[in-house]
Amino acid sequence: MGFTPRRFLGAKPPKASLLLPFLLPVLLVGGQGDENAALNNVVTERMAEESHRQDSAYLLIFIMLLTLTILTIWLFKHRRFRFLHETGLAMIYGLLVGVILRFGIHVPQSMNDVVLECAVNASPATLLVNVSGRFYEYTLKGEVSRGTDQQVQDDEMLRKVTFDPEVFFNILLPPIIFHAGYSLKRRHFFRNIGSILAYAFMGTVISCFVIGLIMYGFVSFMKVVGQLGGDFFFTDCLFFGAIVSATDPVTVLAIFNELKVDVDLYALLFGESVLNDAVAIVLSSSIVAYQPAGDNSHSFEAMAVLKSFGIFLGVFSGSFSLGVATGVMTALVTKFTKLRDFPLLETGLFFLMSWSTFLLAEACGMTGVVAVLFCGITQAHYTYNNLSRDSQDRTKQLFELLNFLAENFIFSYMGLTLFSFQSHVFNPMFIIGAFLAVFLGRAANIYPLSFLLNLGRRNKIGMNFQHVMMFAGLRGAMTFALSIRDTATYARQMMFSTTLLIVFFTVWICGGGTTPMLSFMSIPVGVDSDQEHSSSAVLDGSQRRSTKHESAWPFRIWYNFDHNYLKPLLTHSGPPLTATLPACCGPLARCLTSPQAYENEGPLRDDDSDFILNDANVSSMYADVTVSTDASGSRTINPKHSGAGPFSDSRDGELDPAERDVAIRGTRLVLPMDDPVEPPTTVTLPPPPSPPLSEPHRHRL
Amino acid sequence: MGFTPRRFLGAKPPKASLLLPFLLPVLLVGGQGDENAALNNVVTERMAEESHRQDSAYLLIFIMLLTLTILTIWLFKHRRFRFLHETGLAMIYGLLVGVILRFGIHVPQSMNDVVLECAVNASPATLLVNVSGRFYEYTLKGEVSRGTDQQVQDDEMLRKVTFDPEVFFNILLPPIIFHAGYSLKRRHFFRNIGSILAYAFMGTVISCFVIGLIMYGFVSFMKVVGQLGGDFFFTDCLFFGAIVSATDPVTVLAIFNELKVDVDLYALLFGESVLNDAVAIVLSSSIVAYQPAGDNSHSFEAMAVLKSFGIFLGVFSGSFSLGVATGVMTALVTKFTKLRDFPLLETGLFFLMSWSTFLLAEACGMTGVVAVLFCGITQAHYTYNNLSRDSQDRTKQLFELLNFLAENFIFSYMGLTLFSFQSHVFNPMFIIGAFLAVFLGRAANIYPLSFLLNLGRRNKIGMNFQHVMMFAGLRGAMTFALSIRDTATYARQMMFSTTLLIVFFTVWICGGGTTPMLSFMSIPVGVDSDQEHSSSAVLDGSQRRSTKHESAWPFRIWYNFDHNYLKPLLTHSGPPLTATLPACCGPLARCLTSPQAYENEGPLRDDDSDFILNDANVSSMYADVTVSTDASGSRTINPKHSGAGPFSDSRDGELDPAERDVAIRGTRLVLPMDDPVEPPTTVTLPPPPSPPLSEPHRHRL
Repeated sequence: MGFTPRRFLGAKPPKASLLLPFLLPVLLVGGQGDENAALNNVVTERMAEESHRQDSAYLLIFIMLLTLTILTIWLFKHRRFRFLHETGLAMIYGLLVGVILRFGIHVPQSMNDVVLECAVNASPATLLVNVSGRFYEYTLKGEVSRGTDQQVQDDEMLRKVTFDPEVFFNILLPPIIFHAGYSLKRRHFFRNIGSILAYAFMGTVISCFVIGLIMYGFVSFMKVVGQLGGDFFFTDCLFFGAIVSATDPVTVLAIFNELKVDVDLYALLFGESVLNDAVAIVLSSSIVAYQPAGDNSHSFEAMAVLKSFGIFLGVFSGSFSLGVATGVMTALVTKFTKLRDFPLLETGLFFLMSWSTFLLAEACGMTGVVAVLFCGITQAHYTYNNLSRDSQDRTKQLFELLNFLAENFIFSYMGLTLFSFQSHVFNPMFIIGAFLAVFLGRAANIYPLSFLLNLGRRNKIGMNFQHVMMFAGLRGAMTFALSIRDTATYARQMMFSTTLLIVFFTVWICGGGTTPMLSFMSIPVGVDSDQEHSSSAVLDGSQRRSTKHESAWPFRIWYNFDHNYLKPLLTHSGPPLTATLPACCGPLARCLTSPQAYENEGPLRDDDSDFILNDANVSSMYADVTVSTDASGSRTINPKHSGAGPFSDSRDGELDPAERDVAIRGTRLVLPMDDPVEPPTTVTLPPPPSPPLSEPHRHRL
Repeated sequence: MGFTPRRFLGAKPPKASLLLPFLLPVLLVGGQGDENAALNNVVTERMAEESHRQDSAYLLIFIMLLTLTILTIWLFKHRRFRFLHETGLAMIYGLLVGVILRFGIHVPQSMNDVVLECAVNASPATLLVNVSGRFYEYTLKGEVSRGTDQQVQDDEMLRKVTFDPEVFFNILLPPIIFHAGYSLKRRHFFRNIGSILAYAFMGTVISCFVIGLIMYGFVSFMKVVGQLGGDFFFTDCLFFGAIVSATDPVTVLAIFNELKVDVDLYALLFGESVLNDAVAIVLSSSIVAYQPAGDNSHSFEAMAVLKSFGIFLGVFSGSFSLGVATGVMTALVTKFTKLRDFPLLETGLFFLMSWSTFLLAEACGMTGVVAVLFCGITQAHYTYNNLSRDSQDRTKQLFELLNFLAENFIFSYMGLTLFSFQSHVFNPMFIIGAFLAVFLGRAANIYPLSFLLNLGRRNKIGMNFQHVMMFAGLRGAMTFALSIRDTATYARQMMFSTTLLIVFFTVWICGGGTTPMLSFMSIPVGVDSDQEHSSSAVLDGSQRRSTKHESAWPFRIWYNFDHNYLKPLLTHSGPPLTATLPACCGPLARCLTSPQAYENEGPLRDDDSDFILNDANVSSMYADVTVSTDASGSRTINPKHSGAGPFSDSRDGELDPAERDVAIRGTRLVLPMDDPVEPPTTVTLPPPPSPPLSEPHRHRL
């Protein structure tokens, strides 16, 4: 038991005599024997207390960092300082704290526990230690560089600050991605869905391989020159390609949403970045899974190619369906229970169900990011309409706050890691190669694909858009999370260090340079998507014509299906299922249709139906349902909202009076009504439910 | 390296061939050497993946549990089923899941990592393992009972589910306690502050010693009979007394708030339970700190008694001041920055500052619970008035939700622990003794103290109140958290198991029996504190007379100070400091007074000034300030609120129309105005800012 004496070296017992007054009766009654065992007890207790105090202090550092970031963000906003984005700012603060922790603070020896050495021949994840007949379990923390004792103590502190990457995946990422889906401008997203899928899937794969091949060249060269300090295989190069190919929705969302750039450009960049995160995750885990087969790498079959492609699709579509399924389930629960009477319960349920999507997908071996993204979209499309007004506000605000905090936490943590992570491998050649590869990989993604897409698109992606997409392919939270997940080997450590630098560079330089870049490329900023939207509802100019081809038959079928079956099934909106389902399903339909659907046959009009509605060709299709003025039967309209115009609470929450005029005119569009069954009661569209989007001036503050 | 082959036993690589299509060019370019190292890489990566999947699954279990709880709570509320409280319900679900995990699920061998044995002669917290020249660090997880291999794997799973108690202290408790402070009905709390302090401080110490002595008797008897399987010292008995003496604010708040019981009874029970948590923490850590001095326990001095009493006070008042200081800092920041233009930033800051109080206190060795409680009270009293309307709503709702989730999580976790915790020691004699001791300890707290307090109180604490206080001394989250914190020794394990049973019993039996108990004691439920409040403003009956003596001179001095200096300094309310501070401080006062204070000289009237205001004797004191109709200058009044009566958004959010009438009449109370400096512009009191209280019908849903 060589460790007990050292523990007391500097740990002054501050409350040692604290109990004396209370112990007075005791001491008179009689003292205790076996002081030794009691001492042991105290040691464990005090260890727990000390460790608790340290944990609190480390957590406090992050909280303080975030507080500082918030105050500085406010100062920047207040002074209209635009050159450094808040994510970049969070990183800088993180860096500073990292420097202080690394070089400024030395943990006193006595505060930590003593280290024993035990020479075995393997490093399993779990270790059982036999101490005079009792077994204690130990878990692997990681490799340490053996230095002086002081070194070990400091390392201990730094490692505690560099917390478990699992926290990223299970706690910090879900709210960010969910918020992205929940507040997605679905109309613009779906209008560009083809291009987005092309960039996200094909583009990421291209980029991954371009980067992988370039890095393989560099690494081979480094091996020849003798600059490589460890193994670096081709699969490692590909893995690196996969993790740095993912562009970041967090940063893109932050910068472009604030600048209010052209909605199509925004949709392309954001859509790509959300989906390619998912692609990068699936790709990188495929590469890892492929590695053990490396020993028989020459036995190659055509079947395997097909099969693996199938698995790739399976993982993606599995995650997709999981996300949608949870969303639908939440919609059903909120529709058929009267949970809306208790907004707190409702919000709690909504929050838990949405989070469980992520965990469920991860637990099933799917990708939680994809699942939670589509869950968010489904929740916004269906469940949101079932929620009470109170819960609608609560969920919006809750996820906005969570997103904000998680985002800033991740970025300040990134800054911190540069100094607190202990196994950095900075290799100048590798870093130069990586920057070159990332640049070329992005170019090989954007330009050829844009060329191909422009062949099919009416609404061409201009060269200036392409340059901006090239420039704004920022790397961020996901790249970081993927690279920190495993830093056991030399190759992974070098990747992690390089990735960190790439993230810093793109967020600071490319992120900060986005505004100048946009004005240089003469792309207008400050475009209000509402204005664009509402004017397109009035005019039937060339722009809408061009979208017609993209919102072609698959979308019409979808819209019809959604409008006639899904919305009535999952929400309180009409038309009642009894009217749309064939007669044989009558009893079931009556059972599933909510009483409100009968009074309230107008559809809950919102985003992604808009773009079809606005298409002249589709308006005839729309006429097969009657439209009533009152869609509010299913919702308790709060006095604060009911007074305003139909668009007052629409997509982006607030419109200038002038714009509102346009918007109101826009919705007064008279649709041809030729439904013979039920005479149209009115031609004014019902007030749309407010979609869960944050108001523009608050969104990124 | 005897562990690699076993790891692959059952872990089918599902994505092994996933990468093949992408690897096609690679394979043509050329394969890799050194398969072994690559294999190692893969093993680490796959371990990380597997562990991630497990973590997700475990977290998912809790999320599902909570979801289920929410749905059942809704069902209970919907069907007006009252016999089982939701906290009890959460525990039952936790129990069920615990049973399933314990007996139903066996983790396949291959999913876990292999265990190595290493015989050393101590069990330090950190272990360095030398694996062929590289050092790996391991941390202590705890003692395991050495069984079959299957046993170890299952234990691993159960231990993963039984997560770190630190999570309770740093993540789950702060929001609950903060919410308690933030939504505290300060008027009732401060009206009974003397009695609350007596119950909380003296009562808890009495109870601790009564329980400790009784348990010492039982333990001694058990030792004689031979029923004791390990050491159990007198300090352990006292420690047990300390942890089970704390009554639980969570459960009390939950049950009594919902029943709308008499406000004084509620204030007594709630105030006691919040403060005695803090007392219990300080007491138990004192007992632990005292233990090492056990070897020279007979050297007893009068100085030491004084000193330890001083330290006790120091810890308590240190925590108190830390909490208040953070609250004041937040108030200053929100007052002097224009953060209110960005509600998201404001809410974020508010949230982070409040949380940091807890961590700061813990890191300084103070008690975070006390700090965060008083921080919450300060935030509600000052900062809340500076926030934008949007942030006021957001913070209210955010903490309400966090509180709800954390609370239910803790209770379902408690249920789970009964089966997932692996070192239970259930000793029937000890358990019987503990139940008896807890009962007698509570009686020794309530009845003698009530008798003494009634000698001084005008508003007597009736025998029926005393019986209810006796009965509703539920043990809950804090008792559980304190007992799970250290379960290393036999004594602690037995304490933990017994504590768990006590918590179950009190929450299920006493909690469920509260409603019958109240009606049996003929204590009215469904009392609206607003009604009571507003009628007391109209009538000057005997009840108000009786409170006069409790709101005596210390409170008047405090009120004056608060109203003339603190409120103008920390919020935008008047009177301006330039008027209240002596002339010599002119420049400073001008600097600190917000421009709104000049226009807006009416105080922001709220809860804890009310009880003085309502006292007839004090109204003359109140007259030394002018009252203006408009207190809204400092707040952007949202259209949704501005239309309603002055009380529409008051303490409890919603009043029936009839009650609102009374309330309005209540505030039209004409105060004698005899301030010669500024003529009173009107006699109607300004609309009070809505205090951050949850609406009654939503609060505990």
